[in-house]
Amino acid sequence: MTRQQREAVDALLRNAPVHPNPTLAEQRAGFTLALSRPLPDDVAVDETVLAGRPALDLTPAAAGRGRLLHFHGGGYILGSPGALAGLTAQLARRAGLRATSLDYRLAPEHPFPAAVDDGLAAYRALLEAGVRPEELVLAGDSAGGGLVIATLVAARDAGLPQPAGAVVFSPWVDLTLGGESMHTKKDADPIFTPEAIRAYVAPYLAGQDPAHPLASPVLADLRGLPPLLVQAGSNELLLDDAVRLAGRAAADEVDVTLRVWPQVPHVFQVHFGRLDEADEALDEAARFLSARVRAGRKADRSPGENPGAGRS
Amino acid sequence: MTRQQREAVDALLRNAPVHPNPTLAEQRAGFTLALSRPLPDDVAVDETVLAGRPALDLTPAAAGRGRLLHFHGGGYILGSPGALAGLTAQLARRAGLRATSLDYRLAPEHPFPAAVDDGLAAYRALLEAGVRPEELVLAGDSAGGGLVIATLVAARDAGLPQPAGAVVFSPWVDLTLGGESMHTKKDADPIFTPEAIRAYVAPYLAGQDPAHPLASPVLADLRGLPPLLVQAGSNELLLDDAVRLAGRAAADEVDVTLRVWPQVPHVFQVHFGRLDEADEALDEAARFLSARVRAGRKADRSPGENPGAGRS
Repeated sequence: MTRQQREAVDALLRNAPVHPNPTLAEQRAGFTLALSRPLPDDVAVDETVLAGRPALDLTPAAAGRGRLLHFHGGGYILGSPGALAGLTAQLARRAGLRATSLDYRLAPEHPFPAAVDDGLAAYRALLEAGVRPEELVLAGDSAGGGLVIATLVAARDAGLPQPAGAVVFSPWVDLTLGGESMHTKKDADPIFTPEAIRAYVAPYLAGQDPAHPLASPVLADLRGLPPLLVQAGSNELLLDDAVRLAGRAAADEVDVTLRVWPQVPHVFQVHFGRLDEADEALDEAARFLSARVRAGRKADRSPGENPGAGRS
Repeated sequence: MTRQQREAVDALLRNAPVHPNPTLAEQRAGFTLALSRPLPDDVAVDETVLAGRPALDLTPAAAGRGRLLHFHGGGYILGSPGALAGLTAQLARRAGLRATSLDYRLAPEHPFPAAVDDGLAAYRALLEAGVRPEELVLAGDSAGGGLVIATLVAARDAGLPQPAGAVVFSPWVDLTLGGESMHTKKDADPIFTPEAIRAYVAPYLAGQDPAHPLASPVLADLRGLPPLLVQAGSNELLLDDAVRLAGRAAADEVDVTLRVWPQVPHVFQVHFGRLDEADEALDEAARFLSARVRAGRKADRSPGENPGAGRS
């Protein structure tokens, strides 16, 4: 992890071109341009439909059993499975899992809870299609990470079984913007200002309560959620979203791991190939996801085959 | 990880014999009895002296290069390297590292900062004896975990190099007892009551400020500390000490990992062999420590040998 790499990424982000008063279409195009990364040759990308929504299937050549349901970031307003496909593909190939990245509905056209409704419908559709929850894992970055947690809470409340585990990169889980890092990391964050984050809240909530547990799942009861891995960088206004999500999960008896890398920005994992921390974080996330799928497969064997059967 | 195992350990702890108004000697004997676990055959235990204090050397048959400096728990009042030798030996043999467990001075005979002075002196003595900081790691449980963090802060402030990393189990890092879990985990904690924890504070501080950063290192500036692994159980009044330590470290640009296991108690690692979570946590801690020592060894090679040389 070289300081040069970190400084190059920081400069890249601080010097990103800024449209004065961009239209929504310009914002979306800019986001896609900024987040796009090369797709690896060994991952096939196919358009599909999941629960009535467009989606991308990303199938690594060496995919084993199990499935990864992925939710992209973009503040519930920007982004798409295609914009983040480079990142999703890296996670899929390193974990050896076929990924399905959902094109959930965005605000302002479709405010809260449209995204959560779509997340839950996609999760339910995968179960109904025969994907076993023990072999299903979720992942998401930024708002997509918040959507992962909200979907798990909504699935629990709907009486659905939980998946084998979930990974969230720099999750945005507090739309009340209550984290201390919203102030303390103002100079360190090369991407956001507090005002920029605040600008995402109103179109998504459209007047609804920012403290709603499915909008701000750091305020939700997280009991019953599966093992979680939360990753963040220290150069983030949203650092405390990650820390407090881990704290809330721990208090609610969820098996939770938090890992924070110093001096790297929001969703630094997207800088794989040019920032060692990004590759290290993706490898850690992939190991976590494949271990969860392996553990789920094991737990499903009959008692005769499996010494761990019957464990809780 | 069976529910039966967790319930058996919980019952063991809740039904521990309680002396009414024990003397200090009775408390110390009871602590040693409660924490003692079998020593593995493949770890040699030798008495030694480090910086003028008694210590135990625990040398696994398969020890490689590198050294683990260990600080036992016991609220700064109880405990000894011998009392925790079973736990220390497990960590040493799983990490493949020779461990030295320090018999630092205890309160009330020797109040704060005696323990920190001894921790720092021991760390300095190992460096002066030729142990390279890149191959030196620290570990501690409960108050010993707090002492690990305080020692790292004191070493930094003394201008000493930092070690390669540190692991803390259920660290006690807030003598102001400011964690929310001090209230919310009252029924879940099978070991402590808030009053019992409070009873450790006065003898150690002897009237000094509980918010002193070397007494409550969760309140310290942690910049410059090496990679940290923080482990805790969710059934702990001190859960928030672990969560807030990780949050403080993350904010201060320390590479930090927090892992919380659900429904297990304070320093559950001592129940290795009868609680799957304990073995899993010890293995994770050992992997972390040996990886840190390996990384330190690599970073020490000359630039010609090592593509990572010169990295920060």
